[in-house]
Amino acid sequence: MLRVGLLGAGRIGRVHAQAIAAHPKSQLCAVSDAVADAAESLASEYGAAVRSSGEIIADPSIDAILIATPTDTHSDLIETATQAGKAVLCEKPVDLSLERALACKSVAEASGQPVMVGFNRRFDPSFSSLKSAVDNGEIGAPEMLALTSFDPAPPPVSYIKVSGGLFRDMMIHDFDMANYLMGQLPQQISAVGSSLVDPAIGAAGDVDTAVVTMTYADGRIAVIKNSRRATYGYDQRIELLGSGGLLQAKNILENAVVKSTADGVTGAKPTYFFLERYLPAYRAEWDAFVQAALSGAAMPVTLDDGVAALAMAEAATRSAQSGRPVGMDEVLKPVAK
Amino acid sequence: MLRVGLLGAGRIGRVHAQAIAAHPKSQLCAVSDAVADAAESLASEYGAAVRSSGEIIADPSIDAILIATPTDTHSDLIETATQAGKAVLCEKPVDLSLERALACKSVAEASGQPVMVGFNRRFDPSFSSLKSAVDNGEIGAPEMLALTSFDPAPPPVSYIKVSGGLFRDMMIHDFDMANYLMGQLPQQISAVGSSLVDPAIGAAGDVDTAVVTMTYADGRIAVIKNSRRATYGYDQRIELLGSGGLLQAKNILENAVVKSTADGVTGAKPTYFFLERYLPAYRAEWDAFVQAALSGAAMPVTLDDGVAALAMAEAATRSAQSGRPVGMDEVLKPVAK
Amino acid sequence: MLRVGLLGAGRIGRVHAQAIAAHPKSQLCAVSDAVADAAESLASEYGAAVRSSGEIIADPSIDAILIATPTDTHSDLIETATQAGKAVLCEKPVDLSLERALACKSVAEASGQPVMVGFNRRFDPSFSSLKSAVDNGEIGAPEMLALTSFDPAPPPVSYIKVSGGLFRDMMIHDFDMANYLMGQLPQQISAVGSSLVDPAIGAAGDVDTAVVTMTYADGRIAVIKNSRRATYGYDQRIELLGSGGLLQAKNILENAVVKSTADGVTGAKPTYFFLERYLPAYRAEWDAFVQAALSGAAMPVTLDDGVAALAMAEAATRSAQSGRPVGMDEVLKPVAK
Amino acid sequence: MLRVGLLGAGRIGRVHAQAIAAHPKSQLCAVSDAVADAAESLASEYGAAVRSSGEIIADPSIDAILIATPTDTHSDLIETATQAGKAVLCEKPVDLSLERALACKSVAEASGQPVMVGFNRRFDPSFSSLKSAVDNGEIGAPEMLALTSFDPAPPPVSYIKVSGGLFRDMMIHDFDMANYLMGQLPQQISAVGSSLVDPAIGAAGDVDTAVVTMTYADGRIAVIKNSRRATYGYDQRIELLGSGGLLQAKNILENAVVKSTADGVTGAKPTYFFLERYLPAYRAEWDAFVQAALSGAAMPVTLDDGVAALAMAEAATRSAQSGRPVGMDEVLKPVAK
Repeated sequence: MLRVGLLGAGRIGRVHAQAIAAHPKSQLCAVSDAVADAAESLASEYGAAVRSSGEIIADPSIDAILIATPTDTHSDLIETATQAGKAVLCEKPVDLSLERALACKSVAEASGQPVMVGFNRRFDPSFSSLKSAVDNGEIGAPEMLALTSFDPAPPPVSYIKVSGGLFRDMMIHDFDMANYLMGQLPQQISAVGSSLVDPAIGAAGDVDTAVVTMTYADGRIAVIKNSRRATYGYDQRIELLGSGGLLQAKNILENAVVKSTADGVTGAKPTYFFLERYLPAYRAEWDAFVQAALSGAAMPVTLDDGVAALAMAEAATRSAQSGRPVGMDEVLKPVAK
Repeated sequence: MLRVGLLGAGRIGRVHAQAIAAHPKSQLCAVSDAVADAAESLASEYGAAVRSSGEIIADPSIDAILIATPTDTHSDLIETATQAGKAVLCEKPVDLSLERALACKSVAEASGQPVMVGFNRRFDPSFSSLKSAVDNGEIGAPEMLALTSFDPAPPPVSYIKVSGGLFRDMMIHDFDMANYLMGQLPQQISAVGSSLVDPAIGAAGDVDTAVVTMTYADGRIAVIKNSRRATYGYDQRIELLGSGGLLQAKNILENAVVKSTADGVTGAKPTYFFLERYLPAYRAEWDAFVQAALSGAAMPVTLDDGVAALAMAEAATRSAQSGRPVGMDEVLKPVAK
Repeated sequence: MLRVGLLGAGRIGRVHAQAIAAHPKSQLCAVSDAVADAAESLASEYGAAVRSSGEIIADPSIDAILIATPTDTHSDLIETATQAGKAVLCEKPVDLSLERALACKSVAEASGQPVMVGFNRRFDPSFSSLKSAVDNGEIGAPEMLALTSFDPAPPPVSYIKVSGGLFRDMMIHDFDMANYLMGQLPQQISAVGSSLVDPAIGAAGDVDTAVVTMTYADGRIAVIKNSRRATYGYDQRIELLGSGGLLQAKNILENAVVKSTADGVTGAKPTYFFLERYLPAYRAEWDAFVQAALSGAAMPVTLDDGVAALAMAEAATRSAQSGRPVGMDEVLKPVAK
Repeated sequence: MLRVGLLGAGRIGRVHAQAIAAHPKSQLCAVSDAVADAAESLASEYGAAVRSSGEIIADPSIDAILIATPTDTHSDLIETATQAGKAVLCEKPVDLSLERALACKSVAEASGQPVMVGFNRRFDPSFSSLKSAVDNGEIGAPEMLALTSFDPAPPPVSYIKVSGGLFRDMMIHDFDMANYLMGQLPQQISAVGSSLVDPAIGAAGDVDTAVVTMTYADGRIAVIKNSRRATYGYDQRIELLGSGGLLQAKNILENAVVKSTADGVTGAKPTYFFLERYLPAYRAEWDAFVQAALSGAAMPVTLDDGVAALAMAEAATRSAQSGRPVGMDEVLKPVAK
């Protein structure tokens, strides 16, 4: 039985609390949040204690820490939790600063404690099934990857302002998915972005519509499309062309009803937003963490993965701003020891 | 080169004229129609002569006769045309009377001339591809067949009155399709029908909505659904469950555009009605006739097939009227020699 | 909080136990099963007590009884539980004997306690969404219903022998779905059935492949197709043609991955069997029961519904055996008081 | 009646010959080809004369010239044909040299004769239906366009060597489609390309796999994916995200049969290659040309369109070679007068 302390009782913290409680081998023991009411409400629902994050991390009866706090606290919490001997699952992104994330990784590695980064999409049943098909050689050698990720509606501009920008906040999932499916880092990244959805996003210095092209040392190509608004719902698709065929992961629909009338043949929209769309993924992610934490096996997603995606987001941000392709070495070399 | 006389210049006659003219090995030489203008107009379009049906049949330079006249003339024309040494393609149904159709078959067979009945759906690319899959054993032994045929809108009641009723006029295509796919006649037929679409159809003694269940000597089952109205278009589908899987022929859509909005995900409707839906089938049907007529090979659809479908329509009509299952022997024995 | 006793710790009992435990307003207090180990194992997993069914029903601290025992015990347990003042959710079918089910209904009604029958499919998100669309008039007046229910593989013949036959055991779900969607009982039922899947099923006097046609007083028609074997999985589909269009509930697929290769374009199979396919339905069913039990509102599925479906199964069984249509009054009148 | 001379009797010439002959208002009068046998064979099939291209252009009884010769002859033939007073339909691309194409355009414009460039895809029923939906505002303001064009297999390297490269030979269709749908030229083009399919293509200095990103003055974005090999067939898809929804044009499949077995649910592949896929488009293209030529209305696709697509191909080629984005003004200014 894994005894878990949850740091952060917001929207994503609640999703994790449910997964922790539902898992036969984990127990939600303590919850912290800067907003006392949020912590109280969540803790009482699951019979957990409310405590500060410091107390939870210091408690020797706690085995694992789930970090679901604001991004700017992630690195510090990973460091103190691993130094306190805890296994850690931290929500993405590790940090908005690549340099800070790399420093955090050094500290965590020195502690010897396992850290998993919450790239939940790797655990989506369709995406992991697609990955298996690739690994089984069902489409031969992968050649061209295309990821489509459209949110149903943009977040408030107040959130945009502290988000680190679309590439670090939203596309970071796609960068990790590219690494997961292509099995290596790209060599070069070329990004274009615009503010078409909400002028306030542009005024805040961010983009809401973007396309990123990535090239690999062996000539393969990946392209990512992001938009902050798809009026029909949460659009999450993958296409991978290989020497032997094409794999696609299509959208998950709200239901399987189709209506045919004089106006056409109409089916349901994609499931609305990430909590519903990726619920099975969050469950499977937690299960993978519990299995690894209890068995001592390697974490399926590591701080290396978190740093890699962050470096790609950094390169994309620079490319969109400068209007030229940015090599990954240009981003990684200056911060490497 | 097959020199062809076309009897009937109505809607279906025009479809055939186009196929005859477009085929590299057939030539439309003469056209007849009770309505002089219709014959004139069609003949002038293709550079053919206008003549009476009797003249066309008697003309020794004509090799083949295509009969696209009203149903009550079919048997007589088949008989005189085959006795005049012509190859014949006759539109379905052969006749409204099973007895008359059987008599016609005897006369035609005595002539030694080949006769094909126009069950065009056998030549639809999807349906013939499904048939090939069955014959290749791709779903093992067929067990349960389900045919769905909905017209977009009912014909005028004046047509209904001379049509012979839904089972002979509309479902006859499905009876033939069942024979094509199941490879044998059913043993027993059970039919129910209602007038739900247009009360005038009911007042005329016919039904517009019907379900027919057929059982085979070896225990297999087939079910046919017909409606005279589907507001979304012409619905033409096949499902065949076998010991090793399921084969479905889905609808052909007007185009491949899909629109996703806040109202749902909407695709195109099925192609509107039989001329558009079965255009490739009419072309392939004519090609099959030309090939057989020129080579002397057996016709791919025969008067036997036309009589079989008519006998099934007769059984279904009796079942719907009597409220009890009707054996095929009950229909066939009294008319057999 | 609803305190629940669960009678029956088999496969379906375990599904219900999970739903009871996961619901914020119900608690699994006690479990009984003829097989002591099964009860022990399930009870310990959820911290419930193991007791006999008699003890559970007699316990005044228990509010509701969930009956998931073999069918031949259902009526007795419904009677004793309602007489002991419990709310009851009983798995389908109520009984194999229509007469016994009607007697049970009288006793339960006299007790004044609410009883819900476990027709879980009414709570499937796609099916209930289709029902809402019908009720909203989205396809005008319903005219022709077609239900397809194929199991992936037949149960053991030992089960078949005590099942009451395909119409009572398997098609009873479809009979209830027809009632749910058509809003009234049919007037007449016509059934055909064969043993094509497994000769041992035929030898046991049952069928494994069946088609049932039902006609309604107002002329509407419904048709049900059942097979005990679909090699591609659990096939559960609905089609309802109305005066204004068609509604279809398609299969739920294992995942959303599609692979295109030289062999074709291949997607996932339907989810395998009822536990996975109807998991959300079982959850929603339990929630509906809890809501009604706690609020005193009418149960959404009643013993009347259970008896109606059983009477239809009885009529279908007689029709398949006699080879003629059977009127619902023929089945219902002799057993009515 | 439009009297037509066809220059070029190769594969694409034969497609056009069929369309010319089948159209009620055009007549194929004369055919030329450098390969005498090809011209003879095609001409005899349609009862046309075999003559040199010079003779055909000089013949005053010929109204229109269809140019289906190798690309390096296009500009010269357009010039002489328009100067001889003919209406011209010329296959794409106008030329491999942007400068030469612009000079040709000047000559043709001076002649006052109408010239249409053969971007057949604009006439594909699905693509033109998608365009209508955009124009009708069905998805609000277009924001992000994604075009996918994969050939089933690469052409011989001998063809690659004279093709002008993937961007001018293959992606030129996608450049025109972007112009058609976005309604304006992009501001900047960024291209990456690799030789992954066939090393001989790379050795010939070309790429077989490429992604191009285009940005517009108003911030909109378009992305094009091309591959010379998709083992499952000819993959031709469009996606356009707008402020109010998404429009997709999906592939046209060989047939509508779907097979469900233990191996999955398999449908047909896309129609194989452009002659079959775009047959209706070639017919509609020819009809549009005939209508415009006979009525004097403006051609629906002009030399301006041909030059625009060629300029985009030029920009993409330079971008792929230099590794930096290329502005359209950089390409267009030096050649502008």
